[in-house]
Amino acid sequence: MVIVMAPDATPENIDSLVELVASAGGEAYVTRGVSRTIVGLVGDVRQFETLDLRAMPGVSDVLRISAPYKLVSRENHESRTVVRVGGVPIGGDNMTLIAGPCAVETPEQTLAAAQMAKAAGASVLRGGAYKPRTSPYAFQGLGESGCKILADVRAETGLPIVTEVVDAADVDLVAGYADMLQIGTRNMQNFALLQAAGEAGVPVLLKRGMNATIEEWLMAAEYIAQRGNLDIVLCERGIRTFEKATRNTLDISAVPVAQGLSHLPVIADPSHSGGKRELVLPLSRAAVAAGADGVIVDVHPAPETALCDGPQALSGSDITELAEMATNLPAMVGRSLTPAPERVGV
Amino acid sequence: MVIVMAPDATPENIDSLVELVASAGGEAYVTRGVSRTIVGLVGDVRQFETLDLRAMPGVSDVLRISAPYKLVSRENHESRTVVRVGGVPIGGDNMTLIAGPCAVETPEQTLAAAQMAKAAGASVLRGGAYKPRTSPYAFQGLGESGCKILADVRAETGLPIVTEVVDAADVDLVAGYADMLQIGTRNMQNFALLQAAGEAGVPVLLKRGMNATIEEWLMAAEYIAQRGNLDIVLCERGIRTFEKATRNTLDISAVPVAQGLSHLPVIADPSHSGGKRELVLPLSRAAVAAGADGVIVDVHPAPETALCDGPQALSGSDITELAEMATNLPAMVGRSLTPAPERVGV
Amino acid sequence: MVIVMAPDATPENIDSLVELVASAGGEAYVTRGVSRTIVGLVGDVRQFETLDLRAMPGVSDVLRISAPYKLVSRENHESRTVVRVGGVPIGGDNMTLIAGPCAVETPEQTLAAAQMAKAAGASVLRGGAYKPRTSPYAFQGLGESGCKILADVRAETGLPIVTEVVDAADVDLVAGYADMLQIGTRNMQNFALLQAAGEAGVPVLLKRGMNATIEEWLMAAEYIAQRGNLDIVLCERGIRTFEKATRNTLDISAVPVAQGLSHLPVIADPSHSGGKRELVLPLSRAAVAAGADGVIVDVHPAPETALCDGPQALSGSDITELAEMATNLPAMVGRSLTPAPERVGV
Amino acid sequence: MVIVMAPDATPENIDSLVELVASAGGEAYVTRGVSRTIVGLVGDVRQFETLDLRAMPGVSDVLRISAPYKLVSRENHESRTVVRVGGVPIGGDNMTLIAGPCAVETPEQTLAAAQMAKAAGASVLRGGAYKPRTSPYAFQGLGESGCKILADVRAETGLPIVTEVVDAADVDLVAGYADMLQIGTRNMQNFALLQAAGEAGVPVLLKRGMNATIEEWLMAAEYIAQRGNLDIVLCERGIRTFEKATRNTLDISAVPVAQGLSHLPVIADPSHSGGKRELVLPLSRAAVAAGADGVIVDVHPAPETALCDGPQALSGSDITELAEMATNLPAMVGRSLTPAPERVGV
Repeated sequence: MVIVMAPDATPENIDSLVELVASAGGEAYVTRGVSRTIVGLVGDVRQFETLDLRAMPGVSDVLRISAPYKLVSRENHESRTVVRVGGVPIGGDNMTLIAGPCAVETPEQTLAAAQMAKAAGASVLRGGAYKPRTSPYAFQGLGESGCKILADVRAETGLPIVTEVVDAADVDLVAGYADMLQIGTRNMQNFALLQAAGEAGVPVLLKRGMNATIEEWLMAAEYIAQRGNLDIVLCERGIRTFEKATRNTLDISAVPVAQGLSHLPVIADPSHSGGKRELVLPLSRAAVAAGADGVIVDVHPAPETALCDGPQALSGSDITELAEMATNLPAMVGRSLTPAPERVGV
Repeated sequence: MVIVMAPDATPENIDSLVELVASAGGEAYVTRGVSRTIVGLVGDVRQFETLDLRAMPGVSDVLRISAPYKLVSRENHESRTVVRVGGVPIGGDNMTLIAGPCAVETPEQTLAAAQMAKAAGASVLRGGAYKPRTSPYAFQGLGESGCKILADVRAETGLPIVTEVVDAADVDLVAGYADMLQIGTRNMQNFALLQAAGEAGVPVLLKRGMNATIEEWLMAAEYIAQRGNLDIVLCERGIRTFEKATRNTLDISAVPVAQGLSHLPVIADPSHSGGKRELVLPLSRAAVAAGADGVIVDVHPAPETALCDGPQALSGSDITELAEMATNLPAMVGRSLTPAPERVGV
Repeated sequence: MVIVMAPDATPENIDSLVELVASAGGEAYVTRGVSRTIVGLVGDVRQFETLDLRAMPGVSDVLRISAPYKLVSRENHESRTVVRVGGVPIGGDNMTLIAGPCAVETPEQTLAAAQMAKAAGASVLRGGAYKPRTSPYAFQGLGESGCKILADVRAETGLPIVTEVVDAADVDLVAGYADMLQIGTRNMQNFALLQAAGEAGVPVLLKRGMNATIEEWLMAAEYIAQRGNLDIVLCERGIRTFEKATRNTLDISAVPVAQGLSHLPVIADPSHSGGKRELVLPLSRAAVAAGADGVIVDVHPAPETALCDGPQALSGSDITELAEMATNLPAMVGRSLTPAPERVGV
Repeated sequence: MVIVMAPDATPENIDSLVELVASAGGEAYVTRGVSRTIVGLVGDVRQFETLDLRAMPGVSDVLRISAPYKLVSRENHESRTVVRVGGVPIGGDNMTLIAGPCAVETPEQTLAAAQMAKAAGASVLRGGAYKPRTSPYAFQGLGESGCKILADVRAETGLPIVTEVVDAADVDLVAGYADMLQIGTRNMQNFALLQAAGEAGVPVLLKRGMNATIEEWLMAAEYIAQRGNLDIVLCERGIRTFEKATRNTLDISAVPVAQGLSHLPVIADPSHSGGKRELVLPLSRAAVAAGADGVIVDVHPAPETALCDGPQALSGSDITELAEMATNLPAMVGRSLTPAPERVGV
């Protein structure tokens, strides 16, 4: 950490600061410049977290250098993590495709979507049983009976399942069905939920908050990791900007940036960021080409009757195009498509 | 609702759409223009919520006209609501000052802050016992023992208390101590929490999500209202923008805009939006002058040792200036400062 | 400036950096921490501007401390500047009201608007002759004949005039008519225009770019100042955010922040930020209460036929309310309304 | 256009509106719903531009349907445009690489960069002679002598050149040297410059404003087109968001969105959006995979001494990687790399 003193800071101000740092077990080095004095802090950043350095008299600014996250940081963990979801790897040299319906509606719709997913090259099935909706009057998901449908479809197709959980109280129930828990964009800073997911014993797919910085996203992952769960996959799903031609703005740069800062796998969700079917394939290709560890997309056998986000679901000939992309593009960036598990292995 | 058809929409597309609307109990009126056809929908917007109109073939755009929120809308509720917090009114011709420490740390610090709040003209005490923090390594609040401190200080000072709740599982516990529950910016779309607060039997202070549109904020209030609790106070606390000179950007326009759209009282939080002590008074004055129903500010007897957000807490001579503002400015906009309740009345 | 070295920076990297700084006439102080080395630079920041320090091997981050603007900074110019526009002061203990039509349309409309402005308490007349419009098919302003109309209305009413200039080539022409040049939000980084305005010999009203940080705004002012013109008034006019209920988001905090960083007067434009008539009065009150040195508003005798921005123009009874605000509110923040100049003095 | 009337609009309000539309040569169709009345307008949108419909009594909202741009719209121009820059095609089935130094510094540096560009597969050379800089104290470019250097390097290498122009007054001079004019992000709404470029007789590379919506970007292109120049290439270069880990956020979705709305070629600039060397290759791959018609990147023989944006310039082994990408990736999206022109042809 570097502390910038105000131009009118007194020698007493500086002494107080040095003492405070020392009292917390750190060391402070003072450099006096022409117009400002700079104090460098040496020590573990966590020991300074409880000090309110900015409130000290004479302090103008506090600049943090080391990352505030530790367990998920790449600084002390150079090799990239591979997370296994029901045996399917995400990370490493794999490009893993996750696909399925936005919401689980019926057993038939879910099975049909899972078969589409498999045809597209997916090795993990997505599907929402608990849906966070902006309006209390919109379809809220089937809840536990949706989880049961997913489990049945897993038995039928062999695809492990990832599904969203929206309340800390439901984590154990959902973890009883799912191979991976999803924490959605609106809950990225629902700390009680993050902590519960950290103790659930299954991998977690952590979507970036639509207004969260990459640093806040990694801090949210740190909440999960701190409870002992390091099987976390990060998912960029679009951020909120002034542009209204797309539902959100896919922050494609976040893929290499997060991979540079963290050892966790990073995937992208082109369905929810673009919000329009015709953008899903171009954005999927962009994500794979940018080096994403995977892509998660919405597919639906009949988008026009979907209870949730129909306009962005792939269907029909899109599936063939997606399969072609998933098969051929990863090789351009030194990866290969993760194969779907054998049905017998389930 | 108005549906805009694509230029190449067929007559069959339009017929299907009209039938779908009719099947949901609505009526559709078709207007054929030179290059586009427009379909107007007549009926309650809620009956169309489950239809995925945008996914219908030939549909180019769906424009919603009526507000998607009903219970909190001003459309059917012209008179402005007055919410009572432990007997203290918020709304109407009142300008209510809420003040207190960001976090409850000790009984002494909380009592001292409450006395400062009272001296500044506050009639409600704020203080955090459960703190949502970006870092898992930062101070997380005292939890229930913090609630007990607040209740003791209420007994001592007569000020009713508002405190944050961060998990649906804690709502009943916190509501057992507090006169008003606060739902913070990071939880504005934690729907399980909103629903629990809607059943808690005490008023709710709903902070705007730092990335939420005004419409989404009102939808979040609708979640609470839908569970039977209409004692909701909206709080503008700054939104996230590209500007980094302030912690967040206080959206001062949101005060008159939300008051125009909803019958609920709207207050402002200049402490968390600006994030700097020297901005709190100018922004408080701005909020009152813009017609806010109240202001909520951080005060602390010793900001330099505060465990949370010390740099934005008012102290010392700030209190006198705040009191002067609270006493004199409301009259310029036809309001008057809500007096603190008598200690006997508690 | 403070330079943060990468964890793997070599001693040679650090030596090269120290030498580079020395070659530019500065001094570098090296502090070696546990995981990182910090290099503090002492000297005038301008001498380091041409060095591309971030590109040096081993450099991880470059943190600038001193403000990059000098002439407009308050650091070396503690007293606040008062700018005189045709004799009318802006700054100091004044609250100056500027009002007039968005666009000059006819002599009659401009005179009527000027009389409304005067009735509202304005001492300077605004009006656009050159209009930057998003669409090439929209009304582009009357050009020089609009300037002539403004000059005639000044002769009739005694109000000095401020009008926008959109091209460096037009600066001398417009400065021949106007008492103050306005540089609009879309041109805040049109550096050729800023430089021409810096040599025009009349004061400049510099609107903040709708996407500009406060620092960039002050850098734009520095461009004008560097050409010898320090008669600059800054105008906050709303920034672009994700919120769509208002045309732009008035960044009310920018008023005290910019006043803290610069000695130049800072005014606010509530008409263009809110974009709706009913928001203009609440936002004007907020700006004055926040300590703005003035307010600039659109007025029009017949908003429903206005060629530009009619929906935000004040008219009729709004004028009385604006006058009441302008007369009474400034005293709450230690200011008084600048009176209009006598007609004889023109 | 669709006009939504306020709930309390009177029959007279509606009649006035219908008459106004009729007087402008259009037709209005009235649909009366339960709570609102809707008026659909039939006719060319341009004829309604001068009417201030939102200001009419009883009007609540005005919703525009047809695009406000005509000449650059794909609606009436289904085939995609191919723009030729000194004979080199951009658009169609080509993927055109443009590369060169951010700023022209010396003949040697420019020639070296041009040779690097060619080695990477570029067929057009970029290089700035007029540099818009945030700080007046930063390097502002060599001006006309920079243009001469570019022309000499073109003679030597055969690569046509694109260079920025920042002032309408310089357009003819710069067009005398360049094969293509660049209009930069800060000048996207410098309408005088757009109009001058529309009359310059050479193609224009129009960068998206860092705060501009896609619609505003296309309107800016319309300004150029309206003056008779349809040889326009659009360039997405990153938008300003709350994320600070990157200089700007590359809006990768803007590539397919703009290609869907306009017939003009769309390229991407991964150097200025990411602002960091290590992001340039991943973002270049993403842009090509998303279907961009080209990519424009900074290269520099010695980034550590570059006078401008050194940290983002590719160098050394990056060039080989870029060449490999440019050679192999376009085939994945049905394109092929545009070859550099023969030197003889210049």
